[in-house]
Amino acid sequence: MTSRRAAYLVVVLALAAVAWTNGGEKASRKSVLRHVVLFQFKDATPPAKVKEIAAAFAALPSKIDSIVGFEWGTDVSVENKTKGFTHGFVVSFRDKAGRAVYLPHPAHQEFVKLVGPHLSDVLVFDYNTKE
Amino acid sequence: MTSRRAAYLVVVLALAAVAWTNGGEKASRKSVLRHVVLFQFKDATPPAKVKEIAAAFAALPSKIDSIVGFEWGTDVSVENKTKGFTHGFVVSFRDKAGRAVYLPHPAHQEFVKLVGPHLSDVLVFDYNTKE
Repeated sequence: MTSRRAAYLVVVLALAAVAWTNGGEKASRKSVLRHVVLFQFKDATPPAKVKEIAAAFAALPSKIDSIVGFEWGTDVSVENKTKGFTHGFVVSFRDKAGRAVYLPHPAHQEFVKLVGPHLSDVLVFDYNTKE
Repeated sequence: MTSRRAAYLVVVLALAAVAWTNGGEKASRKSVLRHVVLFQFKDATPPAKVKEIAAAFAALPSKIDSIVGFEWGTDVSVENKTKGFTHGFVVSFRDKAGRAVYLPHPAHQEFVKLVGPHLSDVLVFDYNTKE
């Protein structure tokens, strides 16, 4: 093997290793702050408004850089322990500094104004994942 | 550039792309069922028992194969909307069939017996992540 070939192989392996490690950290290894938000909507809120609100929440990651992960879904549990909550959202930040950017952010505050009048109940629970 | 150099570069880019894509899929692209469980413990339950219970919950992934992800933490939210819940656990399954293995599993049932007498409140909310 020439030294040039060997050098290219080193680059191949190094790039692959870096890419793989980054992916794995995103998946599970790096501690992040999970911000769990559950909504119960008022009976008077029409389904179209509920859809609009969920879409508006789902648009926040494109507006607020400190959001590093976002998931949401409607309840599909089978244990009848939802306490009436029907919509769940999990917003992830690198740490509490990321959350401190998010909470007062104009895009978040605009969302709060949109959703507020339609909520009959809300729960917020945050936790740090383990390293 | 020689054709050999070009060939190596193609390999570099292909390997890096494959590794990156796999990592990304693990992180967010495959739909899973998230099973969110919040606990509030009785005042009478001593801190040592709370620790024992959290450790017992965290041991379930090693006993029940259908658990594909597990996270937990104590509340660190700043919005005063926890409704008294102090401990949060998120158990992930590939789908509802995975949950159907978990709920009646002897290891889970043993855990339920351990924790039950110490809970003043519990909330369960499940959702499917988007593809």
